[in-house]
Amino acid sequence: MIQLHTWGTPNGRKVSIMLEELGVPYSLHPVNIGKDDQFKPEFLAISPNNKIPAIVDEDADGGPLNLFESGAILIYLAEKYGRFLPTIPHQRHTVIQWLMWQMGGLGPMMGQLGWFVVSDKNQTPVGVNRYAAEVERLFNVLEKRLSESAHVGGDEYSIADIAIYPWITQYRTRVPDHIEPLIQARPFISKWLAEVGRRPGVERGMKLP
Amino acid sequence: MIQLHTWGTPNGRKVSIMLEELGVPYSLHPVNIGKDDQFKPEFLAISPNNKIPAIVDEDADGGPLNLFESGAILIYLAEKYGRFLPTIPHQRHTVIQWLMWQMGGLGPMMGQLGWFVVSDKNQTPVGVNRYAAEVERLFNVLEKRLSESAHVGGDEYSIADIAIYPWITQYRTRVPDHIEPLIQARPFISKWLAEVGRRPGVERGMKLP
Ligand SMILES: N[C@@H](CCC(=O)N[C@@H](CS)C(=O)NCC(=O)O)C(=O)O
Ligand SMILES: N[C@@H](CCC(=O)N[C@@H](CS)C(=O)NCC(=O)O)C(=O)O
Repeated sequence: MIQLHTWGTPNGRKVSIMLEELGVPYSLHPVNIGKDDQFKPEFLAISPNNKIPAIVDEDADGGPLNLFESGAILIYLAEKYGRFLPTIPHQRHTVIQWLMWQMGGLGPMMGQLGWFVVSDKNQTPVGVNRYAAEVERLFNVLEKRLSESAHVGGDEYSIADIAIYPWITQYRTRVPDHIEPLIQARPFISKWLAEVGRRPGVERGMKLP
Repeated sequence: MIQLHTWGTPNGRKVSIMLEELGVPYSLHPVNIGKDDQFKPEFLAISPNNKIPAIVDEDADGGPLNLFESGAILIYLAEKYGRFLPTIPHQRHTVIQWLMWQMGGLGPMMGQLGWFVVSDKNQTPVGVNRYAAEVERLFNVLEKRLSESAHVGGDEYSIADIAIYPWITQYRTRVPDHIEPLIQARPFISKWLAEVGRRPGVERGMKLP
């Protein structure tokens, strides 16, 4: 069975959505990062970077496998179960490209915006402005992509959509003054959010833990 | 042939190192991001995120393939040429995990530190301190990993090493006051940097463009 160690954050939800979409058995272990559970030795043994999400696949080929980094977990599960990541090279590497864009761009930049707006008691303008501008730029890139392609990674729904959806959705409520206007002004992102959000696996995954 | 569009930054050097390590033919097109070359329509047609590196593989399976995001390019080239990414699932996904750690963690966080130290005229302390602390934490994670494993992704040299090496090496000179002491205090990182830096493909790739 797959053991999922996670919390209700965007990176965590990527993996709960993926497992719900796959419909494979797993058990869920909440790691309360608000209470520093991510620094407990049991968790660090699985995820030495002290971040959720992480999985242990007890039945992996070649013995139990510990894996952290949401993007690596998505690729692993996609390859193990043969879903949400095409095998045709063109399509496959385009999906991985957009997954990387989320992992290295949209995620870290939205995360910094959230920190300067919500956690920094002074809302230091140089930080808020820098990350608000970068997030707007990234939304423009995404809007253009979705004006040309039904899903982020291509025609088909894929791990690129799964990686991006919980970030935008949770940041609508985390930093609404910044994110909501960006969505309202972008019809292709709005339509995509509504469509992805209606998928039963996404609905279930977004509630876990 | 592979067309590489790049510049002399850490993300660009990942790909020039990879191509030099593979020893495959490619031609190099400098994109001077200091002169806004990344916003030219010809480049945006390949890399709509206006960032280097990007490649066009004219001989890809199924027709020419455009690819941006350094991490996606590394996986693509590793799979195409069957090198620097193991095929055994355990080893393979551990390498991808550390590549993701670079793409989503070490790279963005060092990048923010560089921006607050070098580009922000006030060196705003809340920014400098936040990213200096995060980079130190990440160096601790890497030091521990290298105390247990000869290379970042496992026993063998892989795309995880290729992704991390140019970041640390170039940031030694970009933000020396922050990075140099972190390296000096960490023997496993120091040893790994020296070893990786001696590889002929790495030496050549680090000079391009
Ligand atoms: N690049 C990582 C980032 C994971 C991450 O940032 N996790 C956060 C929650 S979304 C966390 O565990 N934070 C706790 C901490 O940093 O101590 C991934 O995609 O898995
Ligand atoms: N996640 C991307 C980041 C690429 C990136 O940040 N490229 C920088 C240079 S290292 C760039 O092209 N900057 C120009 C710009 O942002 O306009 C990757 O790994 O390829």
